[in-house]
Amino acid sequence: MADFPLAIKKLIGGLERLPGIGPKGASRLVFYLLNTPKSFVGDLSKMLLALEEVKICQNCFGVADREKCSICADLKRKKDLICVVEGSIDVMALEAVGGYKGVYHVLGGVINPLDHVGPDDLKIVELVERVRQLENGHEVEIILATNPTMEGEATAMYLKRKLEALDKNIKISRIGSGLPMGASLEFADRATLSRAMEGRRDI
Amino acid sequence: MADFPLAIKKLIGGLERLPGIGPKGASRLVFYLLNTPKSFVGDLSKMLLALEEVKICQNCFGVADREKCSICADLKRKKDLICVVEGSIDVMALEAVGGYKGVYHVLGGVINPLDHVGPDDLKIVELVERVRQLENGHEVEIILATNPTMEGEATAMYLKRKLEALDKNIKISRIGSGLPMGASLEFADRATLSRAMEGRRDI
Repeated sequence: MADFPLAIKKLIGGLERLPGIGPKGASRLVFYLLNTPKSFVGDLSKMLLALEEVKICQNCFGVADREKCSICADLKRKKDLICVVEGSIDVMALEAVGGYKGVYHVLGGVINPLDHVGPDDLKIVELVERVRQLENGHEVEIILATNPTMEGEATAMYLKRKLEALDKNIKISRIGSGLPMGASLEFADRATLSRAMEGRRDI
Repeated sequence: MADFPLAIKKLIGGLERLPGIGPKGASRLVFYLLNTPKSFVGDLSKMLLALEEVKICQNCFGVADREKCSICADLKRKKDLICVVEGSIDVMALEAVGGYKGVYHVLGGVINPLDHVGPDDLKIVELVERVRQLENGHEVEIILATNPTMEGEATAMYLKRKLEALDKNIKISRIGSGLPMGASLEFADRATLSRAMEGRRDI
């Protein structure tokens, strides 16, 4: 094989390491970048470096510009309605929908013994402590919104037990799961169908 | 929607502009990068800037480290066997296969009136001049390897006429087209099937 410029080979190698980008996709991106204005490539390079400035909110562990993220700092958000998610990207997905008036708690993953991720590797102690400190008078609701995967379900059950042990008046809920909008029963897998039947609601 | 850190929003916006990366894919990449070691993000940033060093070969117009690319500079390559391709990425694809002993000529696109790309926007004059300067004694072969799309076919026909007008002893060929390996006739489109029948070979 011919000797392609080192800069090209290196960037292909770097991009290949990203999720969802294979060798062909990486080559395509590099040759696309070679044909774009240099200013765009320079901007992209600077944008990558700027990620260093991103902080972690000391309250919910989501991404933040400061010590506290904009959601935790928002006085209009209900602090006794906490949606527990796996990652900051889930916060972004839920916020894009809009309408949610509570705050979040980012676990930083799910319990996954196969990947050697135990409860102590996640922000679980911090969640329990955060809920403990909420005032007793108010009605507290915790929405467990880990993904409906085996690990996400197990983590939700673990959190439920930990939060119930607090012996506080807390409503604990799990995000709904079943058929996604637009889907057809015909093509749904058995686990999803069974969950959809269990989760049926009066209309 | 909550106010996410500017660095995150900017990088998502930048990555979205790349081919094959949508808004969801861009978010996923950014949150992946937030969880990788800072050194990797820094390296990626530097690799992008290093693309500036990539030069264009003054002979074949492919990517190069110097004035002349490694293929044109290779004394073992046959200079009177020229494979004409649309872009440098095609050179990379063909070189990855190996076995080709000639050189390349990168057009920089295809003739596409809808996109306002005419023959003058491509390295066609340069190709004709390059072929003209080849010594007369040798057998010259030009392989037209533009993609088998409508524009690629039209460009190949245009090049054939231009090269024939040189009134030189040149063999002009077109890369084979037909069913890709591993495909089944059942699912092939009509244009591909018809081309496969036309392009049948004795065995």
